[in-house]
Amino acid sequence: MKLYDCKPAPNPRRARMFMAEKGIEIPTIQVDLRAGEHLKPAYRAINPQCVVPYLVLDDGAGIGEVVAIWRYLEETHPTPQLLGVDPEDKAIVAMWQHRMELDGFQAVGEAFRNSTPGFKGRALAGPHDYEQIPALAERGKARTLDFFDDIDKRLGESEFIAGPRFTAADIDAFVAIEFARWIKLAVPAACKNVTRWHNAVSARPSASA
Amino acid sequence: MKLYDCKPAPNPRRARMFMAEKGIEIPTIQVDLRAGEHLKPAYRAINPQCVVPYLVLDDGAGIGEVVAIWRYLEETHPTPQLLGVDPEDKAIVAMWQHRMELDGFQAVGEAFRNSTPGFKGRALAGPHDYEQIPALAERGKARTLDFFDDIDKRLGESEFIAGPRFTAADIDAFVAIEFARWIKLAVPAACKNVTRWHNAVSARPSASA
Repeated sequence: MKLYDCKPAPNPRRARMFMAEKGIEIPTIQVDLRAGEHLKPAYRAINPQCVVPYLVLDDGAGIGEVVAIWRYLEETHPTPQLLGVDPEDKAIVAMWQHRMELDGFQAVGEAFRNSTPGFKGRALAGPHDYEQIPALAERGKARTLDFFDDIDKRLGESEFIAGPRFTAADIDAFVAIEFARWIKLAVPAACKNVTRWHNAVSARPSASA
Repeated sequence: MKLYDCKPAPNPRRARMFMAEKGIEIPTIQVDLRAGEHLKPAYRAINPQCVVPYLVLDDGAGIGEVVAIWRYLEETHPTPQLLGVDPEDKAIVAMWQHRMELDGFQAVGEAFRNSTPGFKGRALAGPHDYEQIPALAERGKARTLDFFDDIDKRLGESEFIAGPRFTAADIDAFVAIEFARWIKLAVPAACKNVTRWHNAVSARPSASA
């Protein structure tokens, strides 16, 4: 296996953190997003979606989308289980992961990509070009603040996002919060549950993956 | 088990179609979204996310988010497998499902909810209120047209979206196309591969679930 990666970018970090939790070490190939390497013919030929992370299996099959990379790694390296341990738990983890991705990671992303000059004409990741929408940048910030409040409530009733165990849902929430620095939003001091949890997750070795 | 549902709405259809493919029949409770029943205290007490579908298990646990409902049903009712058959196939299905959900279903949704008068102040599903953004409605339509072209290319090389078998990725692509009627967009005649596939999926009994 090998992973097309970009060390500074938030999306591949979701995959790297998952691998670090499982102790999976594979070669990575750095794709320089700032230099637009993902949009050039050489990388388009590898992954026509023009995004990272992208996992290439030993048989040559390419796996894009973080949730799909996670699925492959969970199936082939089951310990520790990061996508749930039994049918009900797997569903609970899938539910919270999906919310963290949409309400957290996507919210920050829409704020960032719709406001950063370098993403002019490239407001969405992927092969198609869409113009920035300033109102969407503002909405993304509002959603990010709602996200902080929502997970603070959740973390007041649960040690981790999806229950008593660290899971992929924590990875998405953690990376979303780290990504929010890029739009200059930090967890408010009033969100004490998020702060408690964020400190705990930050102390895990995978946090620096 | 019981499912909180709204028969005319596209999102719960994704869950119903999945159940129909597996032959799962459970009681459904209709939530009248047009009457705003999902935003009233009685339903908020059941699902604070204020959305359908919502699956309630026999032990009382509530499972929101379609991907999570699917996960529970796949684990407990494995036949036929709609989320892949081995690690690599599971990853391929997860990859295509994620793309169909984001590039198809979400694209149509952003066009619909940002342009329909009834969704004024409610441009995103969920517990929070966000204003409509007219430019986002336009972007949603552009993305939907790109989606038609993208899946036409994919279906020129594959019988179904994720490979030789019908999977959850087909459900999302199919429901996205049906949903696109609500924004008055239809698959262009030039997309012959989509038309071939759409006819095949429409003929499945689950298409009317």
